[in-house]
Amino acid sequence: MKKPLILVTNDDGITSPGIKALIECAAKLGTPFVVAPDSPQSGQGHAITLTEPIRLKEVDIFSGITAYECSGTPADCVKLAKNVLLRDQQIDLCVSGINHGSNASINIIYSGTMSAAMEASIEGIKSIGFSNVSYSYKADLDACKHYAHQVMRAVLQDDFKDCHLLNVNFPDLPLSEIKGLKVCRQGKGNWREKFLENRDPRDQPYYWLAGEFLEEEHDKDTDLWALQNGYVSVVPSKHDLTDYKALKSIHHLENINDAS
Amino acid sequence: MKKPLILVTNDDGITSPGIKALIECAAKLGTPFVVAPDSPQSGQGHAITLTEPIRLKEVDIFSGITAYECSGTPADCVKLAKNVLLRDQQIDLCVSGINHGSNASINIIYSGTMSAAMEASIEGIKSIGFSNVSYSYKADLDACKHYAHQVMRAVLQDDFKDCHLLNVNFPDLPLSEIKGLKVCRQGKGNWREKFLENRDPRDQPYYWLAGEFLEEEHDKDTDLWALQNGYVSVVPSKHDLTDYKALKSIHHLENINDAS
Repeated sequence: MKKPLILVTNDDGITSPGIKALIECAAKLGTPFVVAPDSPQSGQGHAITLTEPIRLKEVDIFSGITAYECSGTPADCVKLAKNVLLRDQQIDLCVSGINHGSNASINIIYSGTMSAAMEASIEGIKSIGFSNVSYSYKADLDACKHYAHQVMRAVLQDDFKDCHLLNVNFPDLPLSEIKGLKVCRQGKGNWREKFLENRDPRDQPYYWLAGEFLEEEHDKDTDLWALQNGYVSVVPSKHDLTDYKALKSIHHLENINDAS
Repeated sequence: MKKPLILVTNDDGITSPGIKALIECAAKLGTPFVVAPDSPQSGQGHAITLTEPIRLKEVDIFSGITAYECSGTPADCVKLAKNVLLRDQQIDLCVSGINHGSNASINIIYSGTMSAAMEASIEGIKSIGFSNVSYSYKADLDACKHYAHQVMRAVLQDDFKDCHLLNVNFPDLPLSEIKGLKVCRQGKGNWREKFLENRDPRDQPYYWLAGEFLEEEHDKDTDLWALQNGYVSVVPSKHDLTDYKALKSIHHLENINDAS
């Protein structure tokens, strides 16, 4: 039986420890094919490159595994893999990460990791974004690898009909202290921004984004609760942004009179 | 009574015709305050600038209206407006656009215009993204202005409780041929990509994203149908990406055994 073809990407760049860990997981379950940014792309959201050309270069840094570095965004990497590099092949799964930093709660909106996974899901490929809540490149990823392997295997076995995109986040804990997987919804949270304001060497002002994350709820069915309580959070996600609740309540907008 | 403070931004850049049209609408209803990118940012999705400083410069190009150009992304513009320039003031409404090109259907995911509006909604500000389906900078925006004014006025009058973000798209038609507003959901569509592949002057390969948009459904309750049938589409949108339907069906993932 043909081994599943697993597209691996990320947003921290092709030399980050997180993608190496994910490639190891993918190699146990199928044939990894790597297309990842040539430099860190954190905070890229669902950016795509429209106004300039994109470069692709094959690199030999994962002992025998086919890998390309790409000058574009994480979403560009997936588009190039699907439409150029693997044009005539079926991609069985796309995995993105392991991101160094949480993509739980509202962070999914800003996340390059999740944008790559979402792009694959838009293209009809089952996909999973993985993130570790620790920002440290030196964080121990053994527990992440253990659970990433389990989730990938489950998705490859096609347990999850009609669910095309998972946002998986790992707590910063050793394997022995993780309580298991928790399927949950995106918790409400937000960044309280505080721009660093300063002057450059030519006395011109500049601003640099900083801030702290504020959790706005602690309900037990959220990813925020799961991570704080020792679970790996798994949020099924989608790219239909319609607010169906509001859809029912604003139909009178169609009848506004022009009294301007 | 104090006039409402209306933050105006876009993704085509501060010199585009679309933002000028939107500022005219805002000036009729309140006090516009403009913070927009200093260069085009199409396809930026919800990108934010983390790894470098951002510049802000006050410009006098809208006859007496306060305006800043910003080196960052559309989402950066909103963050800087809220947290630096208008730190102690209440922003009553944020409007983004008028984008030159459709942001209906899946385009909301890639859209810098909608990312700015979404960023404002995350910050608790009611917001509206406006887009004209024509990509031409020479398109007649009179009909857009007419309907943008109506929608902004309605939202300022607080008709729309619990609805914080609207994705409004205009068909490329003169005012007399537009049938009215249609409240609808995000229609299913996708881009069929076809990368332009070529060689640069140094004989190195490059790839340039191209493609055509494919509508995947024609249901009457979608933005795609509304636009094709002469209506202005209005999709209430949100930043909770949880797939609530899938949430109910994948709980068995919590019980996967470790048979690895």
